[in-house]
Amino acid sequence: MPLDELAAQLPAGALVTDPDILAGYRHDRAQDPDAAVPAALVRATCTADVQATLRWANTHRVPVVPRGAGTSLSGGSGGLAHGIVLSTEKMRAITVDTATRTAVAQPGLLNIEVKQAAAEHGLWYPPDPSSFEICTIGGNAATNAGGLCCVKYGVTTDYVLGLEVVLADGTAVRLGGPRVKDVAGLSLTKLFVGSEGTLGVITEVTLRLVPPPPPASTMVATFATVQAAADAVVAITGVLRPAMLEFMDRASIGAVEDMLRMGLDRSTEAMLIARSDAPGSAAAEEIDIMVRACREAGADDVFATDDAEEGEAFTAARRMAIPAVERTGNLLLEDVGVPIPALPALVGGIAELATEHDVTVAVIAHAGDGNTHPLIVFDPADEDMTARAHLVFGKIMDLAIELGGTITGEHGVGRLKKPWLPAQVGPDVMALTQRIKDALDPNAILNPGVVV
Amino acid sequence: MPLDELAAQLPAGALVTDPDILAGYRHDRAQDPDAAVPAALVRATCTADVQATLRWANTHRVPVVPRGAGTSLSGGSGGLAHGIVLSTEKMRAITVDTATRTAVAQPGLLNIEVKQAAAEHGLWYPPDPSSFEICTIGGNAATNAGGLCCVKYGVTTDYVLGLEVVLADGTAVRLGGPRVKDVAGLSLTKLFVGSEGTLGVITEVTLRLVPPPPPASTMVATFATVQAAADAVVAITGVLRPAMLEFMDRASIGAVEDMLRMGLDRSTEAMLIARSDAPGSAAAEEIDIMVRACREAGADDVFATDDAEEGEAFTAARRMAIPAVERTGNLLLEDVGVPIPALPALVGGIAELATEHDVTVAVIAHAGDGNTHPLIVFDPADEDMTARAHLVFGKIMDLAIELGGTITGEHGVGRLKKPWLPAQVGPDVMALTQRIKDALDPNAILNPGVVV
Ligand SMILES: Cc1cc2nc3c(=O)[nH]c(=O)nc-3n(C[C@H](O)[C@H](O)[C@H](O)COP(=O)(O)OP(=O)(O)OC[C@H]3O[C@@H](n4cnc5c(N)ncnc54)[C@H](O)[C@@H]3O)c2cc1C
Ligand SMILES: Cc1cc2nc3c(=O)[nH]c(=O)nc-3n(C[C@H](O)[C@H](O)[C@H](O)COP(=O)(O)OP(=O)(O)OC[C@H]3O[C@@H](n4cnc5c(N)ncnc54)[C@H](O)[C@@H]3O)c2cc1C
Repeated sequence: MPLDELAAQLPAGALVTDPDILAGYRHDRAQDPDAAVPAALVRATCTADVQATLRWANTHRVPVVPRGAGTSLSGGSGGLAHGIVLSTEKMRAITVDTATRTAVAQPGLLNIEVKQAAAEHGLWYPPDPSSFEICTIGGNAATNAGGLCCVKYGVTTDYVLGLEVVLADGTAVRLGGPRVKDVAGLSLTKLFVGSEGTLGVITEVTLRLVPPPPPASTMVATFATVQAAADAVVAITGVLRPAMLEFMDRASIGAVEDMLRMGLDRSTEAMLIARSDAPGSAAAEEIDIMVRACREAGADDVFATDDAEEGEAFTAARRMAIPAVERTGNLLLEDVGVPIPALPALVGGIAELATEHDVTVAVIAHAGDGNTHPLIVFDPADEDMTARAHLVFGKIMDLAIELGGTITGEHGVGRLKKPWLPAQVGPDVMALTQRIKDALDPNAILNPGVVV
Repeated sequence: MPLDELAAQLPAGALVTDPDILAGYRHDRAQDPDAAVPAALVRATCTADVQATLRWANTHRVPVVPRGAGTSLSGGSGGLAHGIVLSTEKMRAITVDTATRTAVAQPGLLNIEVKQAAAEHGLWYPPDPSSFEICTIGGNAATNAGGLCCVKYGVTTDYVLGLEVVLADGTAVRLGGPRVKDVAGLSLTKLFVGSEGTLGVITEVTLRLVPPPPPASTMVATFATVQAAADAVVAITGVLRPAMLEFMDRASIGAVEDMLRMGLDRSTEAMLIARSDAPGSAAAEEIDIMVRACREAGADDVFATDDAEEGEAFTAARRMAIPAVERTGNLLLEDVGVPIPALPALVGGIAELATEHDVTVAVIAHAGDGNTHPLIVFDPADEDMTARAHLVFGKIMDLAIELGGTITGEHGVGRLKKPWLPAQVGPDVMALTQRIKDALDPNAILNPGVVV
């Protein structure tokens, strides 16, 4: 590939070929062994850099992997040997407009930085993936990221009012804008949200901000069976919208307790952590309803607090689950979702698969959305165990599809889950997807191997 | 067109060629004089009927206008002389699943019937276009309909979890499903929502339902200037999310008062009607904040009530505005939106246009969203006035674009607003739109003349 030609169109230093630096752009957090050190890296400083890079890549048919912070758990931002990585990490401007309650952010800003910029103006950007301190807003838009507060406040797409996107041929288009309601033309903004870098590169995001919520109260309940916890989830979500409703199983509780020593009950089979941020006295009422629902479902211990710090400790425990379990081995991170009533069948089925194939699977879940994260632990030095872990990774997706669920609730298809996508959506939807892909990226340069 | 061949593939009576019946499918509520009596009408009874019709139409290159209840205000469902109308009015099944809090509805059900079916199971389907008693859920999905409660609860797309869509070649695809979070593949469900019948025919909608909100309290405030009312809107939406925040100007207040005689103050320049349905004592607190914001913005009269019936009377007054103004002449119904701070400039500019071109324009607005409905009144017998009305119709869109707004916040582009779409989105977005249209409907049989 004629890298000199590309370098000539970029600011000094934007094109990187130093092997030591390139090595850092091989993997994303999915640690896909098939990911390769890319041939080159472009650190775009502005939209024009992205345009120049894509024009060049399209002319020379060079695969391009768009990349934010590389926290993908589905192998969506891992390198390709004959491709380049196009990183947006240097594009970090943001402006907040209080009058329209919107923010216009460049893609390289971290989620937490968007939240902070909004907070400085007394506003709130809700979506909160557990990785919010380390992932970019561009990556969030590209994956339609979820998080803990989504059960009440929705996912990333609900907050994206507009985008600037550079198409495969280098054309930059503006979609939507700082308007809460706008139905002029096709819903193109929504099509690009969640497209995982396969249709274009996001160079700017216009976000809807909202007034901050009142302080939250927290409820924690433990259960002797997963079924009882799931019953409580169904009962709660039927009558109110909690601000958070998270689930941890015995294995993940144990791993977090090993790490944090905060006194979690290791003998319990399931724990729910729920929040209400309803205004005024309504928070106490909602917490009350949730406490009663847990008791009626047979909870062992139920604990409620309106102390923010105490509540935050439990939320932090839930957020630490992935790193905590990760200390016990390498992880294959699942993201399957099912309709809420099927939660016990899913969690039960996963436990059976773990036993049958002799692997450890810890389960955490955004239970209020039916979105679970089974964490499959394995030792990469043990070939047989690694193979069993991969087998279970696939079988969990098969199970989710069987239960009317999805192979990915928020992490995306990436490269790791692509083989299972046809089984979920069927050949006609795959063909429809391919038609859109071909129309927008006829030379298939954008993130090949992801989704289609 | 070989109608016999089509008739042979449909149940008896589904294909209609009776000119008296066909005449009723010429116009939608936009009363576009260019709409024509269609060559035939298909009243589909099931997905297979829709598939047979589209396969036939695609083979013979016959234009197809998908139609729900024909309440479109942008001419999206008006007939074409050399085309057929494909009506979904007979497809009216619905099932509600309380466990997943979803409804699966066929497209021909009215919005109010969806709300009722949900309510029978203690659940709520929020989106509430003012036409909710007469428009279909299929039409709502096809236009991404808005309404009064959207300022707090979002628009139709926020509640559509899945669709069954028949593509131009007759293939039926299932997109999404009863899962709150699902990012497996491109966001195709969202692409079809708001596509105004140009990409496929919606034959089933999976809707997210939510617990019903607490009873609402209502606040009504009158202002001596539109600017003061707009100031109040900006102040209110900066600190909370009202459950409704509607605006009526002097002309629309007068028309409603003529019709309902409910004692509205005809001399006031602007009225805001706002609601809070926050739980418990929080509603009173929110109403308090809104009352204070209105007073600080210089409101003349402010009135608050937690009596549901009294509150509903004001909401009904707002809903009656279109029919009330319609009694004074024919209407050209605008739907322009702007960022909220630009509301006074928009409403002021509209008043200037009305004076300059000597037409009456009444303005109502979903003010909390910045989405306005200027209602241009004209007498179709008066050619000159009709021409001036159409001129102002266009100039209002020009003004909205100039103010960074949209030509349509919720009614859709249809045939009436198509000429203005390129000015809003630009040639590159039009080209992108055309590429998607060509990929999905290569023979351009689906609702030609709409959007692209
Ligand atoms: C500990 C941990 C917890 C996590 N918790 C959550 C969670 O709760 N919810 C959740 O949704 N995710 C979670 N994730 C996954 C991950 O953080 C999200 O997918 C995140 O949105 C990725 O952002 P990123 O900047 O790292 O993107 P990357 O990993 O760099 O890229 C992700 C995908 O987006 C594409 N992409 C990135 N930037 C752009 C752009 N500017 N234009 C076009 N395409 C682009 C890439 O090509 C790739 O396909 C977690 C990850 C970790 C490590
Ligand atoms: C008094 C009044 C008040 C209104 N208030 C509002 C309001 O507050 N908010 C709002 O958003 N709208 C409002 N509308 C406009 C209108 O009711 C909405 O656009 C509604 O969604 C149209 O539904 P329908 O069933 O009448 O669709 P139709 O008018 O039949 O069709 C509308 C569009 O959708 C397409 N379509 C219809 N059904 C299908 C299908 N099954 N598959 C594919 N395409 C299809 C048509 O081709 C057309 O392009 C109002 C209309 C009136 C008359």
